Amino acid sequence: MTETGGELVGPVEIVGVGLLGTSVALACARAGIEVLLSDSVASHVRTATGLGAGRRRAPEDAPQLVVVAVPPAHLGEVITRALAENPAAFVTDVGSVKASPLAYVREHGPDDVGRYVGGHPMAGSERSGPLAATATLFEGRPWALTPHADADPTAASLVGELASLCGALPLVLTPEDHDQAVARTSHVPHLMAALVAGRLAVAPEGHLRLSGQGVRDVTRVAAGDPGLYGQIVAGNARAVTDLLGQMRAQFDDMIEAVGNGDAAALDVLLKEGQAGTRAIPGKHGGPQTAQASVYVTVPDEPGNLARLFADAGESGVNIEDVRIDHDPGRPVGLMELIVASDAAEQMKTVLESRGWLAHR
Amino acid sequence: MTETGGELVGPVEIVGVGLLGTSVALACARAGIEVLLSDSVASHVRTATGLGAGRRRAPEDAPQLVVVAVPPAHLGEVITRALAENPAAFVTDVGSVKASPLAYVREHGPDDVGRYVGGHPMAGSERSGPLAATATLFEGRPWALTPHADADPTAASLVGELASLCGALPLVLTPEDHDQAVARTSHVPHLMAALVAGRLAVAPEGHLRLSGQGVRDVTRVAAGDPGLYGQIVAGNARAVTDLLGQMRAQFDDMIEAVGNGDAAALDVLLKEGQAGTRAIPGKHGGPQTAQASVYVTVPDEPGNLARLFADAGESGVNIEDVRIDHDPGRPVGLMELIVASDAAEQMKTVLESRGWLAHR
Repeated sequence: MTETGGELVGPVEIVGVGLLGTSVALACARAGIEVLLSDSVASHVRTATGLGAGRRRAPEDAPQLVVVAVPPAHLGEVITRALAENPAAFVTDVGSVKASPLAYVREHGPDDVGRYVGGHPMAGSERSGPLAATATLFEGRPWALTPHADADPTAASLVGELASLCGALPLVLTPEDHDQAVARTSHVPHLMAALVAGRLAVAPEGHLRLSGQGVRDVTRVAAGDPGLYGQIVAGNARAVTDLLGQMRAQFDDMIEAVGNGDAAALDVLLKEGQAGTRAIPGKHGGPQTAQASVYVTVPDEPGNLARLFADAGESGVNIEDVRIDHDPGRPVGLMELIVASDAAEQMKTVLESRGWLAHR
Repeated sequence: MTETGGELVGPVEIVGVGLLGTSVALACARAGIEVLLSDSVASHVRTATGLGAGRRRAPEDAPQLVVVAVPPAHLGEVITRALAENPAAFVTDVGSVKASPLAYVREHGPDDVGRYVGGHPMAGSERSGPLAATATLFEGRPWALTPHADADPTAASLVGELASLCGALPLVLTPEDHDQAVARTSHVPHLMAALVAGRLAVAPEGHLRLSGQGVRDVTRVAAGDPGLYGQIVAGNARAVTDLLGQMRAQFDDMIEAVGNGDAAALDVLLKEGQAGTRAIPGKHGGPQTAQASVYVTVPDEPGNLARLFADAGESGVNIEDVRIDHDPGRPVGLMELIVASDAAEQMKTVLESRGWLAHR
């Protein structure tokens, strides 16, 4: 089908030079691979070209790999066209859903759909368009590879190379597993966050002054673009509705437990939730380790965080995560340093010895 | 009723010397106020005494203010007893729910329930017990004061003084408004986080490898103690079920919208969620300002965060919030620095000029 075998040598064509497409292009260009750019918006190609992401594709160009990076609603159609127009090329995409575009390609595409292997880098930004792109967007992020039953192994291998070249961590799943996984880890959490946040939008005057870090965390993702998430959820409707159906039963159990004062039933639901938080893989993919928080009062001025982290660094304790807790009404931040449980006391002691107000 | 008027001079009695009670005691002791300690667990009083939090209460002691800091399920009963046993004292509590304990006190307490004014400091820790206590636990936190219709103004004033003395920010609400507010900003978000996390607990092998920061944020609070949250929710059952009922209707709308591919209906729900995230008060209680994220790749070793924050400090840009994004599989952290939108480019440029891999 192609003589390039299993090595990504290019050219790579990027179809759709928005945030993700241009970022892939920049990473390929950085690696010395020739990049061809296409977009239905001509000015996007000019912008991406200006950034050094590659050159406009000419009709006679023969890409080794085509990367489709268009909005979720158009994936199936554009992947199908890429396969038809480039009979010697392999094709991948960077879309957030995998089964429905594949079904479209199987129905409308050429016979050799094995040249297509889907992909999904778990990266993004609140910005969009080529100007927001960067070669480092995928650094350290998972990049799902979703070979289907008829996938050409060379295609799968090239897409894995592309992910690695972008600095991402390739993870292989079937398209169906991928969609179920992201329904559970992304789409349904987003929808639930939107439901919780929706109740904040109609809160009586003054009630939200009691908002703490908890509700900020729960609702944070709901700030994302409704248009984009609507398309993503629509493209994964089956896996999402399956999971929402399970949750609706649990939701009813919860209403009944709270309404009837059934402490035992409520406890079951809360304990299952607690178990779920522990099921998320730990940092670096390893098992989760027990963590504890050390809270530090930090006057909210530039420079103080640097001083805090310098002092925290002296403790020799690795900081696993951090939060700045928001204080309504005064210019002081409460910094939450999350460290291994057995190191929290040491961190607190070192910070106190350097004059910080710290507690656990 | 008492000759002390509106000034908090003590003695202050703390009933229940767990995390919150002992922390209030330590803050009072730090301010030079005499503190009396009581607890049904004698060893807790010994521990708290050993920490310098005060001395065991003797029968003849006459506190000016009694602070009830017992688990939610026992609040009404212990507040009632405190009023009856200390006829010249004012009484407050630090419980997470306010209307149901007040109803109990009105039913079972003495006639002069005006001596009781509830309170709720928005502070906690994943640890419990007197050894976890600290005088700084309440620094910069909201502390709801919930005077009821018959409340003695002196009682309200003393409880406000107590909150200020602890470094907290007093906020006055009615008990009913308080309970509705925390149902919306804390209890229901917690329950929904538990529902989402509960589906993680039953995820197929490997699916959670696609977990990103979003699902970690949404589910984080569900890691909290199920026993404690069960009591809190049970004590606020009415406000919680009211709100869950509203959300159940929205949840059904959502299932229908996704199942039927009704993009417009889904968009309404997602947009309401987005509006809700913007309704949460901004840092320092002011309006929210537009924020943007700058992502920085940070090798995960002690010292690097200090260097990053020192360099970030040179930009002169204030950091509003931070996150460490988790990378399954490799020892690199992706740090998210959240800054005012119009300063993000400046922050990125300064960091890049100092050798950091940064993007927006």
